[in-house]
Amino acid sequence: MMQADGAPHPIDFWFDFGSNYSYLSALRIDHLARQAGVAIRWQPFLLGPIFGSFGWATSPFVLQPKKGAHVWDDMRRQCAKYAFPWQRPSVFPRNAVLATRVALYGAREPWIADFVKAIMRANFARDEDISGEAKVIDMLHELALPAVAIVAECKNEANKPRLREQTERAMALGIFGAPTFFVGNEMYWGNDRLDDAIELASGKRVRLAASSRG
Amino acid sequence: MMQADGAPHPIDFWFDFGSNYSYLSALRIDHLARQAGVAIRWQPFLLGPIFGSFGWATSPFVLQPKKGAHVWDDMRRQCAKYAFPWQRPSVFPRNAVLATRVALYGAREPWIADFVKAIMRANFARDEDISGEAKVIDMLHELALPAVAIVAECKNEANKPRLREQTERAMALGIFGAPTFFVGNEMYWGNDRLDDAIELASGKRVRLAASSRG
Repeated sequence: MMQADGAPHPIDFWFDFGSNYSYLSALRIDHLARQAGVAIRWQPFLLGPIFGSFGWATSPFVLQPKKGAHVWDDMRRQCAKYAFPWQRPSVFPRNAVLATRVALYGAREPWIADFVKAIMRANFARDEDISGEAKVIDMLHELALPAVAIVAECKNEANKPRLREQTERAMALGIFGAPTFFVGNEMYWGNDRLDDAIELASGKRVRLAASSRG
Repeated sequence: MMQADGAPHPIDFWFDFGSNYSYLSALRIDHLARQAGVAIRWQPFLLGPIFGSFGWATSPFVLQPKKGAHVWDDMRRQCAKYAFPWQRPSVFPRNAVLATRVALYGAREPWIADFVKAIMRANFARDEDISGEAKVIDMLHELALPAVAIVAECKNEANKPRLREQTERAMALGIFGAPTFFVGNEMYWGNDRLDDAIELASGKRVRLAASSRG
């Protein structure tokens, strides 16, 4: 898919810090998008209220024990395949409201990819609690950012509606899980569809088809 | 994975004729398994009683409208990618008890792959009803098989417990959806994992690791 000026289309990456398949995509998307010349629009959101709207009190991986059992085998194998570190979180899904507010605040900043990966690795590679303010400040410090100021800004009452609006936007888009990708109006659900979404965004097929016509 | 004699391990292919992602795997597995030298054990079963055991009256693609909406977009794109014919079934999920009995009866016969693909194509490429006896007999006739005798055998009261036992076996194995693949004790859920399962069955990685040791 290309925009009117022939440039690749951006990809919207909707993710939740508690979602294990979002972890895989968070570690993969940066490299894939750069290779394809595709811009990433980082879209952190909360899956909890969406599950709540379906009448679910938590993740389907918890509510459906057989599916849950498969998920952890699958994650072990997928991480081995991608050579990503993996430790099954002892708390699942983890609450990360403050980290999500920070990611939303920094979504257009140059540090967003590193921040997202740092939080994801804490949760899924080192089984660390990611809900606390101290942890988020630590992560921002490690990226040499003004951690205390950023967290204060994100905790500001005036800023709080942003995350609620973002999650409402996810709901309105028909998002039901994470990760979810959008390229224009095409919605792709799951880490297994990241490559297809990037391919559509890059306009690779369109260009090949065009060039084959001489 | 290899067996004691060094041969590739077989792959168990658990599928349901009403399952759209089973359609994709049914059209792909024969070629992939042959290339890899892996034997397929065809395991037709009924997903309905398994969904029922979760308290679901039908497919989650029907019960969860947002997930359902994505599934049909995804199928359109996946079929385009694999160059498979695709027509969204006007009835979903389709009942195919008799066809499943026939597939179970013929699971070790040389015609099993062709029969499975014929039923799947009727459902997902031509939007045809696959529940009726006449349709199953037609399909068997097209494969030049003794259709009436096979169907009579499958409808025999003495034969009916086989499908119930097969579905109970699926439940005991922890199967919660289709397609599902087993290679030894490793369970893989979904068409997106077929390649990984075949790779494990073929012992490709194991052989590479072994040969690198000289």
